[in-house]
Amino acid sequence: MSIVVLGTVALDSVKTPFGERKELLGGSAAHFSMAARLFTKVNLVAIVGNDFPQEHIAFLRSKGLNLTSLIIDKGKTFRWEGEYRGDLNTALTLNTELGVLSVFKPRISEEQRKIKNIFLANVDPDIQEHLLRKMLKPKLVGLDSMNYWIHHKRKGLIRLLKHIDIYVANDQEARALSGEDNIIKAAKTLKSYGAKMVLIKKGENGVLFYSDRFIFSLPAYPVEGVVDPTGAGDTFAGGFMGYLAKTGRVNSLALKKALAYGTVAASFNVEDFGLNRTSSLKPLDLERRIAKFKECFHFNL
Amino acid sequence: MSIVVLGTVALDSVKTPFGERKELLGGSAAHFSMAARLFTKVNLVAIVGNDFPQEHIAFLRSKGLNLTSLIIDKGKTFRWEGEYRGDLNTALTLNTELGVLSVFKPRISEEQRKIKNIFLANVDPDIQEHLLRKMLKPKLVGLDSMNYWIHHKRKGLIRLLKHIDIYVANDQEARALSGEDNIIKAAKTLKSYGAKMVLIKKGENGVLFYSDRFIFSLPAYPVEGVVDPTGAGDTFAGGFMGYLAKTGRVNSLALKKALAYGTVAASFNVEDFGLNRTSSLKPLDLERRIAKFKECFHFNL
Repeated sequence: MSIVVLGTVALDSVKTPFGERKELLGGSAAHFSMAARLFTKVNLVAIVGNDFPQEHIAFLRSKGLNLTSLIIDKGKTFRWEGEYRGDLNTALTLNTELGVLSVFKPRISEEQRKIKNIFLANVDPDIQEHLLRKMLKPKLVGLDSMNYWIHHKRKGLIRLLKHIDIYVANDQEARALSGEDNIIKAAKTLKSYGAKMVLIKKGENGVLFYSDRFIFSLPAYPVEGVVDPTGAGDTFAGGFMGYLAKTGRVNSLALKKALAYGTVAASFNVEDFGLNRTSSLKPLDLERRIAKFKECFHFNL
Repeated sequence: MSIVVLGTVALDSVKTPFGERKELLGGSAAHFSMAARLFTKVNLVAIVGNDFPQEHIAFLRSKGLNLTSLIIDKGKTFRWEGEYRGDLNTALTLNTELGVLSVFKPRISEEQRKIKNIFLANVDPDIQEHLLRKMLKPKLVGLDSMNYWIHHKRKGLIRLLKHIDIYVANDQEARALSGEDNIIKAAKTLKSYGAKMVLIKKGENGVLFYSDRFIFSLPAYPVEGVVDPTGAGDTFAGGFMGYLAKTGRVNSLALKKALAYGTVAASFNVEDFGLNRTSSLKPLDLERRIAKFKECFHFNL
């Protein structure tokens, strides 16, 4: 089954101890798509300005994405500028230029409205809600957000969670929105807000999945050469949601495998700048790494 | 096969958001022993003062520990006072009284010198070296240390690592001693100092194991009700080394199972103050929890 992803398509300028890159193709929806496309047809719902390089459009199309609902509007493309230092676990945002994102009203084709798997990547919760209302029969809806919205649109975000199947957050966001220090208590509280399942991303420390029926916890895939972590969380979500869309099941085994696919997808993402590594991935690359990943922790009693 | 553990037996005063306790029986060797005793005969090499309550001696003996090499010296028992706040991940040391620990010269019986499994828990590296030299045929030697020794006895510690099979550190210590931010690079550097294997404990984020042949990574067992994390790392080491001593093998499967036993032992430790939870554990408690733990991340491809 195909998937709709709403989010940003951006021009990212990033500095890490391993180098500096200007105006790379990035954004939450772009990173998500590069992983999800390995499992299913991805329908991108986003906006860029008329300064957006044509080559990026051609590139996204060449990766098999459906760009019907990618709006090209008058104005500037969303830009993000950031830096990572030391252990590369936290991004320091140096500058954000919203550009056309500030007037974004997502459009979606009649055909796409029927799609059942939806991921609302990080944008204003009002925009996320706007798109969700247009969907005819959502079956599995994931949502990501960020600290900015947690602080500035807390009520809207919590209202939206009642219509969400899987809330995806990083550990800081989970603690901030729930007010809980213990990460399991945080997940429980977030679930009580309405999301059926909660997925907490912990960067190099892996991921925690929480629902009424299951608690899953996976380590990260060990990566020695982390070059640029930008988009790792969205890549994770792309692998996770992409796999679930492909299998069409959300049972215990499917969820654990989805977490593992998200994990290995994210491990590729951090190995190079921007989409460099994930855009050249083939499904077999994921399969090979997931087999190695399993070896990191599987044991028999 | 039995095991020798060198370390501290202490009186701990601890404050967490869940309560406060004064002069609990604690210390690195005591916490280690409570987990290791579930697998093998534990020989405690430590010192206490003549103020050490007789009931604690009786208690340790009732847990099956061999106390032949527990010195009771004139003076005060080592005391530690600390506090945990917020997410309980970091201890704030309020006070340390070395007492008899400052004159500790470990003694060990002729019989015990023949034991092949040794764990040098956190004490002065000179004391650790002193004991290691007395051992006749060490086969598997683990060592833990702490930031204080990394900063004040760096050379001695690195010299000692050449004689160690498994260096056990938490992530902060691993980064401090190696000078590397990336945790895999840190493990690699620590291995290059001479330890054959490196085990990095990451608290609620699980554990990373590194050797020339394997990288293993396990999440923590999800614990919602963390009450007091004091001694969790030593309890982990006790489960890990205890299981290896019992099986007598250090292959891939044994190492992974040892990591899992260490993980579940530590998960019990944090559920109550001091040794309250671990001292009442039966082997079956570990078996039950390890089966649940496996369910948190095992999947089939």
